[in-house]
Amino acid sequence: MIETTIIEKEKVKMKNPILIEGLPGIGLVGKIAADHMRAELKATLVAELYSPHFPHQVIMQKNGVMRMIKNRLYLVPGKKNDLLILVGDVQAITSEAQYEITGKMLDYFQKKGVKLIVTLGGYGTGKVMDKPKVFGIVSNKPMIPDYKKYGIIFGETRGSIIGAAGLLIGMGKLRKMPGVCLMGETHGGIVDPKSAQAVLEVLCKMLDIKMDLKKLQIRAKESEKFAKKMEAEALAAKGGTPPGKHDLSYIR
Amino acid sequence: MIETTIIEKEKVKMKNPILIEGLPGIGLVGKIAADHMRAELKATLVAELYSPHFPHQVIMQKNGVMRMIKNRLYLVPGKKNDLLILVGDVQAITSEAQYEITGKMLDYFQKKGVKLIVTLGGYGTGKVMDKPKVFGIVSNKPMIPDYKKYGIIFGETRGSIIGAAGLLIGMGKLRKMPGVCLMGETHGGIVDPKSAQAVLEVLCKMLDIKMDLKKLQIRAKESEKFAKKMEAEALAAKGGTPPGKHDLSYIR
Amino acid sequence: MIETTIIEKEKVKMKNPILIEGLPGIGLVGKIAADHMRAELKATLVAELYSPHFPHQVIMQKNGVMRMIKNRLYLVPGKKNDLLILVGDVQAITSEAQYEITGKMLDYFQKKGVKLIVTLGGYGTGKVMDKPKVFGIVSNKPMIPDYKKYGIIFGETRGSIIGAAGLLIGMGKLRKMPGVCLMGETHGGIVDPKSAQAVLEVLCKMLDIKMDLKKLQIRAKESEKFAKKMEAEALAAKGGTPPGKHDLSYIR
Amino acid sequence: MIETTIIEKEKVKMKNPILIEGLPGIGLVGKIAADHMRAELKATLVAELYSPHFPHQVIMQKNGVMRMIKNRLYLVPGKKNDLLILVGDVQAITSEAQYEITGKMLDYFQKKGVKLIVTLGGYGTGKVMDKPKVFGIVSNKPMIPDYKKYGIIFGETRGSIIGAAGLLIGMGKLRKMPGVCLMGETHGGIVDPKSAQAVLEVLCKMLDIKMDLKKLQIRAKESEKFAKKMEAEALAAKGGTPPGKHDLSYIR
Repeated sequence: MIETTIIEKEKVKMKNPILIEGLPGIGLVGKIAADHMRAELKATLVAELYSPHFPHQVIMQKNGVMRMIKNRLYLVPGKKNDLLILVGDVQAITSEAQYEITGKMLDYFQKKGVKLIVTLGGYGTGKVMDKPKVFGIVSNKPMIPDYKKYGIIFGETRGSIIGAAGLLIGMGKLRKMPGVCLMGETHGGIVDPKSAQAVLEVLCKMLDIKMDLKKLQIRAKESEKFAKKMEAEALAAKGGTPPGKHDLSYIR
Repeated sequence: MIETTIIEKEKVKMKNPILIEGLPGIGLVGKIAADHMRAELKATLVAELYSPHFPHQVIMQKNGVMRMIKNRLYLVPGKKNDLLILVGDVQAITSEAQYEITGKMLDYFQKKGVKLIVTLGGYGTGKVMDKPKVFGIVSNKPMIPDYKKYGIIFGETRGSIIGAAGLLIGMGKLRKMPGVCLMGETHGGIVDPKSAQAVLEVLCKMLDIKMDLKKLQIRAKESEKFAKKMEAEALAAKGGTPPGKHDLSYIR
Repeated sequence: MIETTIIEKEKVKMKNPILIEGLPGIGLVGKIAADHMRAELKATLVAELYSPHFPHQVIMQKNGVMRMIKNRLYLVPGKKNDLLILVGDVQAITSEAQYEITGKMLDYFQKKGVKLIVTLGGYGTGKVMDKPKVFGIVSNKPMIPDYKKYGIIFGETRGSIIGAAGLLIGMGKLRKMPGVCLMGETHGGIVDPKSAQAVLEVLCKMLDIKMDLKKLQIRAKESEKFAKKMEAEALAAKGGTPPGKHDLSYIR
Repeated sequence: MIETTIIEKEKVKMKNPILIEGLPGIGLVGKIAADHMRAELKATLVAELYSPHFPHQVIMQKNGVMRMIKNRLYLVPGKKNDLLILVGDVQAITSEAQYEITGKMLDYFQKKGVKLIVTLGGYGTGKVMDKPKVFGIVSNKPMIPDYKKYGIIFGETRGSIIGAAGLLIGMGKLRKMPGVCLMGETHGGIVDPKSAQAVLEVLCKMLDIKMDLKKLQIRAKESEKFAKKMEAEALAAKGGTPPGKHDLSYIR
């Protein structure tokens, strides 16, 4: 395997799908939101993405079965638009890897006729907010008024969007696919389900769907635990943690 | 040489081969077990694997002849199943390299009709055990009962398997090749022939073969010495050890 | 996207174009000069260059629209020679990336019939000069007398030219495209519009054009601000700045 | 330029050439020996090798002309065997790069009918010797007696040969090209023309040629100076030396 590969679970027809991305990132805001959405909407797994740029590890599951590290695509049928939800264990960490993986994803989205790319993430401010705002950035200026009406704030964010949340929209634009990035206001140093909730509330309005948010906290805990484990092992794999000292639950 | 290359020593027909992998890893458990197996079963060298992802060094042998760093495949004829044993000097250290090399290996295994992939390794616990357990992880859930009866313990390991021991099974599964990873309980910070012995005992039952274990300790010493030398030189190659100070037996 | 891509805005015919390069580098001398030139001469955007070797970030603009990180090519029609001005947000940081990107640029320049490559940069001396000199280096010895007459000093610089300013000329020479690098004397540790001005004055003589230099200082400030932000975020992206501490205006 | 490229200066026929390699390495032993040989034997430049794995720098020469970083091949006509001498500014520093470059070199050597590969280097012992020994390592055991008679010592070196001196012979063997590596005993932490002289004396006997060694010291000084400059700039390019502090004679 020398390049990123998307394996389709079953040939499935999609109706004007809207892509919703929520991979691990700042405050895990996007990941928590998308994972919750996938579970609540009982989405069906339609494709898996494997990449040589992901860690060279396999995950040992409680049931004695291993599984590879991957990203997954889930489908939710809709009236006007199906939803295609992108979630995953990790994002690649080098530029070259991110561009390659994003390119492969966009190839797939184009083939499936994706009409809009929505990416979810956090916007770090260093402060804990009681009512986190939701900021937006679009690929094309004329889109802004359409999204302002859902309470998304434009023009107040500065700097860069790092990783898939930005590249999917930036590279999508080169292929004439419109996109919007929703960023929940967040501290930046802690896992933030409240920010994820704010993003989801706006997203539900945007997509005109309903979603129960009761289990969000529980799912956020699981995401945090998994993310910490992945990080610890990534460190260990690089020789960061000497065996016999800290976390030893790995083999190589 | 821009990609990993497997050079077959001689065109050899194999009978439903079972792959046994034992490359360097935690506690050198897998390497010691597979090296011993290869020697005791008088296996025949059938193929060599070279990779641009291995260190750019050649090894100076005592007899005045150099040899490249490589992985090797050995064959042992069997009644129902031949054994194909994979051993080697090193594993690659980046994700991209591990995925590429594993892919090339699986290409070869598929061509040779490999029926089962068995990988050997250690599972670090930070403790020294008198009677190390042998843990297992499979590619497919229905396989578990078959292996439980040999005393392999399932469902008690957490975290990830790093490197070839995990990827061969994870990527093998994508090609519909079933696999099981056997992990000997080990401290994690020391070379552990006792854990390798526990793994071999279970493996002999599984494969219904006999093997003398007397020379295991001696071979483990050799493996440890070689592994330490490789590590020291890898460091030196990166400028970690200033010439004239520590180990100087290298040239570049 | 697995390789650098140049997207032409419109098919445009060029008349014996001279390439002027000014990407970020020491003292931002080349960038300030080329950015100013592009603005003053009201150059037209003709092509954009995207690369997987650039940071995997997109920039959030004040107007609520994101844009990718890129290099840009602008055209100024001339009597004998059109000017093709190369400016950009960043340079790639690895050798492999620089060689790949430079190769792609030269492919494009050859197709467009570029007659001469002029690269702009700074030459660090550790001193602040009142009247910075302009040093030159050419691809072919017979070119030197032609450039000496504009006050460019040859034979007084030592060492290497790192990045695009050097490689464009070095690799251009392999394709028989002549080139000259103009280096403004500069301290090396500070942004230096005065050095950029010295380079521009020489360049105007060389190209026989006039250019207003009043806004140079203002544009230099903007360049400095942008460059610092890019650097801070590149650091943050690598985990250099812990979230919640320094600059937090990024998302990933 | 995405891969290593060898550009032939002129189509030249070679008579059973013997390759002599002397690139920068421990104690600069191989480089000093090969550079001296090239100069004394008035060898003709026949090919240049450029690589994206070399530093992304061009060298500013005293005469105001830049040149790219490269390796060079020189030819000396002989009675029975022509000599093909490989010298250069640098070696690549990653494994992948070394394997790729060595592969490209061997392609060229095969096309030119190279009969024997001789690589030159130092063998670090941490001691300064009055009469440095010359150690050898061959690709094939039967070659040893032939070389022992020239005073080359076999079987006393341990560890690895890092870089081109080892890989050229290791990878050459895979293509059935025999090779021998000559290593001059050297301290390891200092530039060592005396060790280079010992290697050259043995080499002259081996090749049955004569060579004046008077200018060896002077040339060694030049090599040392150049190597130090390259290293300082490589550091600077990586941000190791802040501009305005140490060596500032570079631009980027």
